Amino acid sequence: MRAGQSMYQALSDYAASDFYPYHMPGHKRNPAGGEMADYHKIDVTEIDGFDNLYQAEGLLREAQLRANSLYGADETFFLVNGGTGGVMAAVMASTEPMDEILIARNCHKSVYHAAILQGLIVRYCYPKMISEYDICDGVSAEEIGALLDTYPEVKAVVVTSPTYEGVVSDISAIAAVVHEKGRILIVDEAHGSHFGLSPHLPQGAIAGGADLVIHSLHKTLPAMTQTALLHVNGSRVDREKLKGYLCMLQSSSPSYVLMASMDACVKFVKEQGQERFGAMRGHFESFCEKAASLKHIRIGKMTKVSQRKYEFNGWDPGKLVISVKGMNMTGKELGDILRETYHLEMEMTTETYALAIMTLMDEAEGWQRLADALCEIDGRIKKSADGTASASGEKAPVGQLKSSMPLARAFHSEWETVPLHTAEGRASAGFINLYPPGSPIVAPGEILNEPVIKRIEECRRAGLNIQGVSEAGEIVVVAL
Amino acid sequence: MRAGQSMYQALSDYAASDFYPYHMPGHKRNPAGGEMADYHKIDVTEIDGFDNLYQAEGLLREAQLRANSLYGADETFFLVNGGTGGVMAAVMASTEPMDEILIARNCHKSVYHAAILQGLIVRYCYPKMISEYDICDGVSAEEIGALLDTYPEVKAVVVTSPTYEGVVSDISAIAAVVHEKGRILIVDEAHGSHFGLSPHLPQGAIAGGADLVIHSLHKTLPAMTQTALLHVNGSRVDREKLKGYLCMLQSSSPSYVLMASMDACVKFVKEQGQERFGAMRGHFESFCEKAASLKHIRIGKMTKVSQRKYEFNGWDPGKLVISVKGMNMTGKELGDILRETYHLEMEMTTETYALAIMTLMDEAEGWQRLADALCEIDGRIKKSADGTASASGEKAPVGQLKSSMPLARAFHSEWETVPLHTAEGRASAGFINLYPPGSPIVAPGEILNEPVIKRIEECRRAGLNIQGVSEAGEIVVVAL
Repeated sequence: MRAGQSMYQALSDYAASDFYPYHMPGHKRNPAGGEMADYHKIDVTEIDGFDNLYQAEGLLREAQLRANSLYGADETFFLVNGGTGGVMAAVMASTEPMDEILIARNCHKSVYHAAILQGLIVRYCYPKMISEYDICDGVSAEEIGALLDTYPEVKAVVVTSPTYEGVVSDISAIAAVVHEKGRILIVDEAHGSHFGLSPHLPQGAIAGGADLVIHSLHKTLPAMTQTALLHVNGSRVDREKLKGYLCMLQSSSPSYVLMASMDACVKFVKEQGQERFGAMRGHFESFCEKAASLKHIRIGKMTKVSQRKYEFNGWDPGKLVISVKGMNMTGKELGDILRETYHLEMEMTTETYALAIMTLMDEAEGWQRLADALCEIDGRIKKSADGTASASGEKAPVGQLKSSMPLARAFHSEWETVPLHTAEGRASAGFINLYPPGSPIVAPGEILNEPVIKRIEECRRAGLNIQGVSEAGEIVVVAL
Repeated sequence: MRAGQSMYQALSDYAASDFYPYHMPGHKRNPAGGEMADYHKIDVTEIDGFDNLYQAEGLLREAQLRANSLYGADETFFLVNGGTGGVMAAVMASTEPMDEILIARNCHKSVYHAAILQGLIVRYCYPKMISEYDICDGVSAEEIGALLDTYPEVKAVVVTSPTYEGVVSDISAIAAVVHEKGRILIVDEAHGSHFGLSPHLPQGAIAGGADLVIHSLHKTLPAMTQTALLHVNGSRVDREKLKGYLCMLQSSSPSYVLMASMDACVKFVKEQGQERFGAMRGHFESFCEKAASLKHIRIGKMTKVSQRKYEFNGWDPGKLVISVKGMNMTGKELGDILRETYHLEMEMTTETYALAIMTLMDEAEGWQRLADALCEIDGRIKKSADGTASASGEKAPVGQLKSSMPLARAFHSEWETVPLHTAEGRASAGFINLYPPGSPIVAPGEILNEPVIKRIEECRRAGLNIQGVSEAGEIVVVAL
């Protein structure tokens, strides 16, 4: 290995050498190894000269330092169990068992899972719904500040920004409030690993002053699925404790292919990021230009700010919320047409919108094909019969669910299985998630009410992917 | 996707289509994506038609069924966070917080980590040392049975078989004892995913009747690092609970490359396994034939059973324990010579031996190069001065460490940092591991005594990789 060499290069050089492996992995870099043989070439283990992720001193230390220098946090760790492992380690390193934690109710399920494993008391900040698009709004510093006054025992705050749909919260303001009260701020910026990398993009949570920031590299940058970064700022979080949890929640045999992919991604962004994010801005403007002619389909928060310039009002320009709310077509139907007629595959669809992710790896073609398809489809749809609601009806407000017991207690309680439609008044023993994005509609301990049961049944009827309800329509509740 | 198509083929076909991705991963299958672009081609996410690992109904269900049919368990799950995630899920699904668990003291650290997260009371079975090779022996059904009588509250038993060094325990007998007493048996067979796949190999833990078996596919079969399988037999373990923990401890964005690699591995073994394991047996015999002429180096348990037939007395023939105990060379020095002079990289070295992993992917060359190198080196070494002990001295017996408090309590206690050499009588707050293999020398709550301190200092002096001791020689202990 030469100093400054990328992981990919170091691994490729090694693969081309005559060194013979008497070690894992079992494929032995033997090209006879079937379909996946190509992928094995650079797949090694913690042998001499190739460092150890959980005690990095060489190759992996350098690669993590390169990632760190791209983002400018105090310290950066590679994650091989996705953002999931990083979010859990962040929550657990910021708390002790029985501590209180304040989380936005739309956090990813991994935050809830960490709370169960650590036995935390969870307090919620409920983001408002943006009824125009049926998506969650960000959370404000005022809301967080007020909740910290209400719950003075809270040790750490967890916020998801941007949301899956691209809504950005003001992390600088939230960090100021949280730190003023001496608490830890964790930002799940899984969907914003591109933030702060170009003047065309929103500021990121690291610059905003969060203590711990999780970046799911694969979501919006060119890295392999399941790769992510954890960034640390300042001294509010014990780094040794954090490292302990990272070691606990991730494989003791981390994939060198995944890690090399992160290093290659960092290199690529450093070398080509400015140019590509600049080009992306141009594609975005052209897309908006075309989208401005849409009569029925609406692109979330798209605003013309000057003759040829469009903005999403602070939302992530890499997330297109393609709304058909109030039209005679559901988001899922729109997604089906885009897939079947145009071979365009969306990230997710709901009753009222389809969500498209755009990154620096989309060339002009990707933006154009989508804009052209939307223009064609737009001519074929119209307002739904009542002129205001989507075909599946205005959604019943679910409101805040009452909780009957702490998360962990409900999770570890005796369960029983009941049909969803008979579960009103019962405390859920499990999670009920809409996936993606995977934040819970119902968490363990929460009491099911009529609106939430109706809402889950609507999602199931609309063909959305609901986790935690069996095919037969049953859920687990705390036994009486 | 066509029925019966491998994951690799389905993903490759999709990559070759004109479908455009408006979804994760951010690389968008764009070949302009830098060094790792090749690896991106088949890397997708849970889009329509590509299933969801945690709710598998299509592509991933079929792939897991194919893996299941190779091993013959009742149910088989893909693991993308290594055996680590599977071991932890197995332990946590078999227990409730505050339950007791009986584990072999040489279990992988992931067993200890699960015990901390679940707040378990841990009882130990201490494997005997095989002083001839300085490695742990297996555990016996008698030992386990006696301990279950001593600790009647134990809910589950965890055994590592084969060990890292290839020592196999009698799982059938252990399962009979454990099940007779109504307990759950978890076998960490991470190093034995090849067991039972050929008449030339030991029987596996699935056939032995274990309830939960973890296979780290990448260790001894041609699958990518960080891939593993969890097998379930019978109804002693609640499958829903198990699935819940698998979902909790693994990325919500599992890598399709890792998963396709597991599917390709299963296919390869089904198609070429018998032939390759047969060839491996031949290479093994030729290796032993040459190794029989070694005067000083000894191959663990190698026994001539007939004119041209050798055995390892039930140990894994895929693990070569290359012992230099009692010679004027350490295992580490042997490994350095093999690397530097012969370009042969060992899996691990210790003071008294080097460990080589051999799999069905080693062709004749790999076995020959090692045998030839060992024959050459053998002529240059001799017995150490005192004629019996290795250069680094006969190892002081460490014995069983007394525990002052439960694992989780010590882990969550107030810490302080002290020099290792002053730590006698103090309770450790962290783990001290020799890596590889990563089973703890000291676990949280255990009281350091003089022999263990001396042992750790010896390992450090010998240049072995000790985790849990800082460069300055400090460790964390429970604050007084």
